[in-house]
Amino acid sequence: MSEAAVRQRIEDWAKAFRARDIDAILSVYAPGIVSFDIGPPLRYAGADDKRRAWKAAFAAYAGSIECLVTELNVATDGELAFAHSLNHVKGTLSGGDTSDLWLRWTACFRHIDDEWQIVHDHVSVPADLQQGTALEDLAPWGASA
Amino acid sequence: MSEAAVRQRIEDWAKAFRARDIDAILSVYAPGIVSFDIGPPLRYAGADDKRRAWKAAFAAYAGSIECLVTELNVATDGELAFAHSLNHVKGTLSGGDTSDLWLRWTACFRHIDDEWQIVHDHVSVPADLQQGTALEDLAPWGASA
Repeated sequence: MSEAAVRQRIEDWAKAFRARDIDAILSVYAPGIVSFDIGPPLRYAGADDKRRAWKAAFAAYAGSIECLVTELNVATDGELAFAHSLNHVKGTLSGGDTSDLWLRWTACFRHIDDEWQIVHDHVSVPADLQQGTALEDLAPWGASA
Repeated sequence: MSEAAVRQRIEDWAKAFRARDIDAILSVYAPGIVSFDIGPPLRYAGADDKRRAWKAAFAAYAGSIECLVTELNVATDGELAFAHSLNHVKGTLSGGDTSDLWLRWTACFRHIDDEWQIVHDHVSVPADLQQGTALEDLAPWGASA
């Protein structure tokens, strides 16, 4: 069943994230992925830039990272699927501080070469545009302590 | 053709945005939409909260608003579609300042009751997580002047 296959891909992706296994993470993305990532630039395309973004992300963390995919919703029909979730990411930063944040994650899949590949993803936290701040302390139950 | 119909819905949505016509905007969303919006909270669901978010957005602007949908990509198959674009939003804020920013926009559609409805959307600017800032001065060609 398609939905089960997409969910399995997401589970594999989260497992690779926790294991800091960039090759395994990259295997879930289509070569031509168009990404609206958590950090700049506004938009980038292609697996090379996606690899660069993951390397930078892992460089920011000193050790193990937890990534819990919650509130996952998956829709599939024919060759397309989309999924969205709130991903709880926790870890120790290279500077020694602890990071604990919730990321909104949307992933759009296409069935290519007999597997589900992410052709577009969008990762963010909400912004306070008037203050110019990224709202990193939000949790699904409201602002975290 | 499905792709043309989805593109038409997006064109209608952008036109309603420019006209500050909340009812017309709302007609594009499914009643149960799950939204990862530009502002807090992290996630909300349902057309009532979507209406509230649009009212707040329009309250922040004093007059007319420009919204140009660029880099639009649309995929459709069966009952599903997804679209992503960079939306250039310009206007004068209630305080008198000019606002000019690019928003990343992802919209996931389902064909319900013979029309394409947005069941999930995701709107953001990138963040600098270490500085805690929302990067509002980014443009597709790099940082704006």
